[in-house]
Amino acid sequence: MEGEPTRIMIGVNESTIKGYPHPSISSKGAFDWTLQKIVRSNTCGFKLLFLHVQVPDEDGFDDMDSIYASPDDFKSMKQRDRVRGLHLLEYFVNRCHQIGVACEAWLKRGDPKEEICREVRRVQPDLLVVGSRGLGPFQRYSHSFQKLWDPR
Amino acid sequence: MEGEPTRIMIGVNESTIKGYPHPSISSKGAFDWTLQKIVRSNTCGFKLLFLHVQVPDEDGFDDMDSIYASPDDFKSMKQRDRVRGLHLLEYFVNRCHQIGVACEAWLKRGDPKEEICREVRRVQPDLLVVGSRGLGPFQRYSHSFQKLWDPR
Repeated sequence: MEGEPTRIMIGVNESTIKGYPHPSISSKGAFDWTLQKIVRSNTCGFKLLFLHVQVPDEDGFDDMDSIYASPDDFKSMKQRDRVRGLHLLEYFVNRCHQIGVACEAWLKRGDPKEEICREVRRVQPDLLVVGSRGLGPFQRYSHSFQKLWDPR
Repeated sequence: MEGEPTRIMIGVNESTIKGYPHPSISSKGAFDWTLQKIVRSNTCGFKLLFLHVQVPDEDGFDDMDSIYASPDDFKSMKQRDRVRGLHLLEYFVNRCHQIGVACEAWLKRGDPKEEICREVRRVQPDLLVVGSRGLGPFQRYSHSFQKLWDPR
């Protein structure tokens, strides 16, 4: 019953309360849940695909302490965002390496819902896990549930 | 990383096109997908919980060839529905036994959406798999996708 590993895409994002790129509680929850409930001891049977979608700030002035005087300042800001995103992904990739689960990770910029849907169509994972604070169709289960689906 | 098995509830229903209690294509799809993509070779790590919700016919006259002349006729109809439902569950239980995956199965009567939610709250599975014909929140993936979530 083995063969190609089951490819699980996990949408991850940063914590909005903690500073430097800590994963959000719901992202960590989605990841831990996937390991404990799906992967379990079968580490060779799965490959985790981490997608982090960065939301561009609408006017580019989300950093109050900085002065933007030239186009290059904005470029370096984008660069800094990118580094933050990579550090976020690094957390998950490191944990996968420790456990021995194959993984890939990548960054996108845009509207998370749109980008996740686009990447699901492109990458065609077997399922998608998205951390949630109960904003899905089953709001009554309001604590950290995950939604997963097979896009095909 | 093992321990208590991951409990996966699978909502199953009858085919509307084939006669006698054949599982619907989407139920079989949800079951096969769960085995191939989640359980894989780790048959001891999972327990499958099959729930079939029977929808009572509103006026009780869904069987055109029968004559209902007394309250007992309706009782026997309910009994027949029950037997059909049990045969449906038998299909899934048999397949689990062949594969060596632990399972449980039970019947409920009522509105499937309501009853599934009620049973999820009561039984607290780790995740739920529901076959679908693309009627969920991701309608663009219109072919046989599964939705799964962790209700806690």
